[in-house]
Amino acid sequence: MGSAVAPEFPHPFDPLTPDEIATAIATVKKAHGDNVFFNVVALQEPRKADMTAWLAAPETAARPKRVADVVVIAPGNKVYDALVTLEEPKIIKWELLEGQQPIITMEELQLVEHICRKDPRVIEQCVLSGIAAEDMDKVFCDPWTIGYDERFGSSVRLQQAFIYYRPHIDNCQYQYPFDFCPIYDADKKEIIAIDIPKVRRKLSTAPSIDYHPAAVEARDGYRDNLKPINISQPEGVSFQVKGREIEWQNWKLHIGFNYREGIVLNNITFNDKGNVRPLFYRLSLAEMVVPYGNPEHPHQRKHALDQGEYGAGYMTNSLSLGCDCKGSIHYIDANFPTRAGGLRTIKNAICIHEEDSGILFKHTDFRDESVIVTRGRKLVIQQIFTAANYEYVVAWIFHQDGTIQPEIKLTGILNTYAMDPDEDTHGWGTQVYAGVNAHNHQHLFSLRINPNIDGPNNTVFMSDAVPSEAPVGSPENFYGNGFYAKRTKLATTGEAMTEYNGATSRTWDMCNTSKLNPFSRKPVSYKLVSREVPGLLPKEGSLVWKRAAFARHAVHVTKYRDDQLWPAGRHVPQTSGEPSRGLPEWIGDGSESVEDTDIVLWHTFGLTHFPAPEDFPVMPAEPMSLLLRPRNFFSSNPVLDVPPSYSSTPSQLLANGSGVLDAADKISKLAFPGGSGDSVSNGTSCCATNGNGTTNGH
Amino acid sequence: MGSAVAPEFPHPFDPLTPDEIATAIATVKKAHGDNVFFNVVALQEPRKADMTAWLAAPETAARPKRVADVVVIAPGNKVYDALVTLEEPKIIKWELLEGQQPIITMEELQLVEHICRKDPRVIEQCVLSGIAAEDMDKVFCDPWTIGYDERFGSSVRLQQAFIYYRPHIDNCQYQYPFDFCPIYDADKKEIIAIDIPKVRRKLSTAPSIDYHPAAVEARDGYRDNLKPINISQPEGVSFQVKGREIEWQNWKLHIGFNYREGIVLNNITFNDKGNVRPLFYRLSLAEMVVPYGNPEHPHQRKHALDQGEYGAGYMTNSLSLGCDCKGSIHYIDANFPTRAGGLRTIKNAICIHEEDSGILFKHTDFRDESVIVTRGRKLVIQQIFTAANYEYVVAWIFHQDGTIQPEIKLTGILNTYAMDPDEDTHGWGTQVYAGVNAHNHQHLFSLRINPNIDGPNNTVFMSDAVPSEAPVGSPENFYGNGFYAKRTKLATTGEAMTEYNGATSRTWDMCNTSKLNPFSRKPVSYKLVSREVPGLLPKEGSLVWKRAAFARHAVHVTKYRDDQLWPAGRHVPQTSGEPSRGLPEWIGDGSESVEDTDIVLWHTFGLTHFPAPEDFPVMPAEPMSLLLRPRNFFSSNPVLDVPPSYSSTPSQLLANGSGVLDAADKISKLAFPGGSGDSVSNGTSCCATNGNGTTNGH
Repeated sequence: MGSAVAPEFPHPFDPLTPDEIATAIATVKKAHGDNVFFNVVALQEPRKADMTAWLAAPETAARPKRVADVVVIAPGNKVYDALVTLEEPKIIKWELLEGQQPIITMEELQLVEHICRKDPRVIEQCVLSGIAAEDMDKVFCDPWTIGYDERFGSSVRLQQAFIYYRPHIDNCQYQYPFDFCPIYDADKKEIIAIDIPKVRRKLSTAPSIDYHPAAVEARDGYRDNLKPINISQPEGVSFQVKGREIEWQNWKLHIGFNYREGIVLNNITFNDKGNVRPLFYRLSLAEMVVPYGNPEHPHQRKHALDQGEYGAGYMTNSLSLGCDCKGSIHYIDANFPTRAGGLRTIKNAICIHEEDSGILFKHTDFRDESVIVTRGRKLVIQQIFTAANYEYVVAWIFHQDGTIQPEIKLTGILNTYAMDPDEDTHGWGTQVYAGVNAHNHQHLFSLRINPNIDGPNNTVFMSDAVPSEAPVGSPENFYGNGFYAKRTKLATTGEAMTEYNGATSRTWDMCNTSKLNPFSRKPVSYKLVSREVPGLLPKEGSLVWKRAAFARHAVHVTKYRDDQLWPAGRHVPQTSGEPSRGLPEWIGDGSESVEDTDIVLWHTFGLTHFPAPEDFPVMPAEPMSLLLRPRNFFSSNPVLDVPPSYSSTPSQLLANGSGVLDAADKISKLAFPGGSGDSVSNGTSCCATNGNGTTNGH
Repeated sequence: MGSAVAPEFPHPFDPLTPDEIATAIATVKKAHGDNVFFNVVALQEPRKADMTAWLAAPETAARPKRVADVVVIAPGNKVYDALVTLEEPKIIKWELLEGQQPIITMEELQLVEHICRKDPRVIEQCVLSGIAAEDMDKVFCDPWTIGYDERFGSSVRLQQAFIYYRPHIDNCQYQYPFDFCPIYDADKKEIIAIDIPKVRRKLSTAPSIDYHPAAVEARDGYRDNLKPINISQPEGVSFQVKGREIEWQNWKLHIGFNYREGIVLNNITFNDKGNVRPLFYRLSLAEMVVPYGNPEHPHQRKHALDQGEYGAGYMTNSLSLGCDCKGSIHYIDANFPTRAGGLRTIKNAICIHEEDSGILFKHTDFRDESVIVTRGRKLVIQQIFTAANYEYVVAWIFHQDGTIQPEIKLTGILNTYAMDPDEDTHGWGTQVYAGVNAHNHQHLFSLRINPNIDGPNNTVFMSDAVPSEAPVGSPENFYGNGFYAKRTKLATTGEAMTEYNGATSRTWDMCNTSKLNPFSRKPVSYKLVSREVPGLLPKEGSLVWKRAAFARHAVHVTKYRDDQLWPAGRHVPQTSGEPSRGLPEWIGDGSESVEDTDIVLWHTFGLTHFPAPEDFPVMPAEPMSLLLRPRNFFSSNPVLDVPPSYSSTPSQLLANGSGVLDAADKISKLAFPGGSGDSVSNGTSCCATNGNGTTNGH
């Protein structure tokens, strides 16, 4: 029976508990006074050597100590990186940073709109754009970190304010963008500049198009032709939860969570017929970048690194039963500090549930219609985060056959800019509604994979499907059909910087070359199968290329080192990209060996988005996913022991069906019982014994 | 309320009814005697001009006549293409074919195994391979069309027999392949040759690995930790069926079916706020090829064009409620002739049901947590066909936002060949079990799309995401971030032969250049988004390249002509590929205009498969899919009128939640009610009013 049990002590991978957050904060305040703001109070992940020892022998090895990773902003806008031990509360690191800006918190953003509304120069621009000065309460502001702007540098904490208008408080503001962009100084709490374009565009006066019920009712109303679908698990769920560790269908993993990556999956193992085999030490989305493709000023500043700049954890939604999640759902909350040193809890930050996944395997013997059909199940671990206008639905999907499928769906609202109706966008954007310009952009994610394929020493091979080199008509390839998988070992960090190749169906294998499959004699491996791999469109040497270096290649591989977690650097807002932080620093000259050692594979995947009116005023969810598939890892199909829905063998059919297994789901039924049209089926028999049909008139 | 109504007359797109099949057969027999075998008695699709006129004015235009497309084999192995009118039964075409072999029928295949078992030379080879002559009843044979073998040509109807052994009748025979290949003459009904390899391999003596319940129980038994998931629609389904026409969520289409393509979708339209807009005149999988990559003789003959050679309709499974299909299901049967002129009905050949599809769209305003979340639905029209060892689960998925998603899942059993244990496969195959060699192969499908995007005159543009040509630092691209969608018009059949480009995220747009989107001013279009596009690995000039010419390119475009349906030709078995039938004949010198006219887009997609032990003895389903997405087709998001699960606006939150719409599904519940661990949630409130969480200790 599925269950959820809470253990006594935090697991070393657990995020900080509310008490631990409070302890860290109190310790810092005691030493440095009350007048400090807390940008981050999070788990410093245990050192891998300590953790590995403890995982191997939890009863006897030293339990890794709990340490808080803290970022504060003190008076005078001094930024400190700190570490605080928690069992015996003590500050063990307190380092003043120069010219670095820590993550932007939701609280900091809330203030900008208020300041903008009152700033005389902002008011002036709004009036120039066509509104009344008394209507500043209808002016709204999505503050983004400035990204990087060479006029201002990195020492002053700045945001760029995207300004919108709502004729009515419920209107979709993205329909009414202003053409100017205030720059906000977070230290002074004031507007210090406004970017005003050479070509001015007044505020749109087009009628509003909204998605909320009153607007829909005022148009054509809601469709009334959807019948409910009910999904339930009356006997409970198949997964077991102990604290943050979950077990399901041979899978076992720890579900972590932090302020910037959101969900982190730790110590993923698979029980292979009693042998618990390690697969991945850690799996997460470690960074992302959303570069916009309009080269006109100041749109180059639109390239949000949403995770390093704002945090997929900080921005995560509180999920709701029956709305975001359907079926039998388990939730896990998230706990964060407030800037002032309080506690912020996001209830239901992570949801977990299982789903039917359709046919798992099937085979019918054409001779006698003996058949087996088995249905599959998948486990979904999910969060949704809102990055101002956009929503990201991030799901980690586990399949019974050992496949892991990270899936991201994009929804929410396009970033928009002002345009005159039917103005020529020069191909850099699309008019998605009257007067609304949605610029071209990409969504690129860094999937950080620390493989542990039957152990920590792994090697990555690139695999390409290529034709035989021998020409058609030669003895080696007479009929010209020869082809094979060409494997290239990625032996150094330099060699490992590789791209996607659609023509060769390129994949990457994370292998343990010390363990060969007993049949194929190939190293046990997990294969990265990823087909949504657009190249980084901002060019080499561009601002984005410098700041989001992880996106330059489809794959990078580095040697594992503690704390090399976030490939655009630790403190991302306002990095200049000179030098490029994170991954390029870890790779250096590219000579380090990444062969047969503890490695991290960084995979860049995503979409290039050319907006269209279908995306407005809110986007129907657009999905992308990739697979981590076991190949040569198991000695045979690992799901033969999933109970079938139906099985008949040749000998059973010869014995008039004696012994045939019929476990068909009895809840399923005909849509139109009683039959009509072609299908006069009584719906009671599964895999009807006449199989491929009656024959008449022979 | 969903419903299914049977109309009085066949719809012109309907497959032949049992009565019509009988009429055609009787008419032929009356004219040519009883001693004719019927390979095909199917609908000759109505001429498009007639159909278009009738669809536009069904009450007044002439109803297209019903005509049977018939292929018979008469005594002396004479093959005839025939047409028979059905309202007034009459043979209007009776054409003798030379050197062409019609489709292989299941009945023809059933005989080969029997003949093989009795053939003295086959018995001799089996004994040499290590079995007793008395055990020939344990020898099984999967007969494939010979494909093409230059020693024999096309005039004699031949099959190649893949021979396997079952120590016990229920064993998986693919574990025990023999190394020799008998050639069967279907006219003489005898073995005329045996291909014997230079290197001999005896039959495997490895212990059997089977997937049926007795074998699983004898190993470790079934897992018992899966709790049921129930899916039901207690108020019925949301789709309406009238004969073979289905309406669902603004979609309307006719579901056809034939012996070779299986499901054919006709006259797909979308009701856009009362305006019924045509999208696709016809959509189907028109051909496929599964080339194997081992260049050694005779493996080059393994490149089944399963649809043209055997028929996705002829091989389709009879689906069963609760096994293949879960939920509330509507079925449609399929009717085919038997060779002798009887009727063969496959019950439940097509299944139709709807599924919850997760979040359709969501947006939360970070300021006040006002939120809308709407769940989506999809419609699935599905068949499963068994091609000897392999299963293909073919689903046509319709989304509410106008997207069509063809999806294919591969399951069933690998094609296998004999090997000595641990023999070097030279990279052409993999030992997936002791003594079992599974050769490299591809699964390539031809998606035939006859667009009708707001009318029949369409143009295809290729779209590539490319960086601005201007260098970084130039005035036009100072920060280097500029990028745009480069569009290339495919104006002629020659220009339209195009490949996939992963680096530019290439897509193809089917446009109506006479209809511009009112906002974007771009032509209304449907975009082909396809990422599983391996190139054809058999080289130019190879046997496969010649016979399966459709697979040479990712996209071809031709001008629509009646009866240009099957891109490898009408009669596929034993074509030599010299000349290449079908698509190359229709394209000719490539000069024909396909701009702004009635066109057909042929898209080749699929997978390259390097087998692994995980795939044996039966493969966990491996999915692939592509999307046809409306772009610039709608003037805004077409699903705003789908009722949300929850909606709160800023004004409602200011009024203490008055008017907030809470339609959360009340069936969903917590997996572990009563709370434990982190999540002490009572599960009664949807989108809890504390939104992003309580703040304490501020």
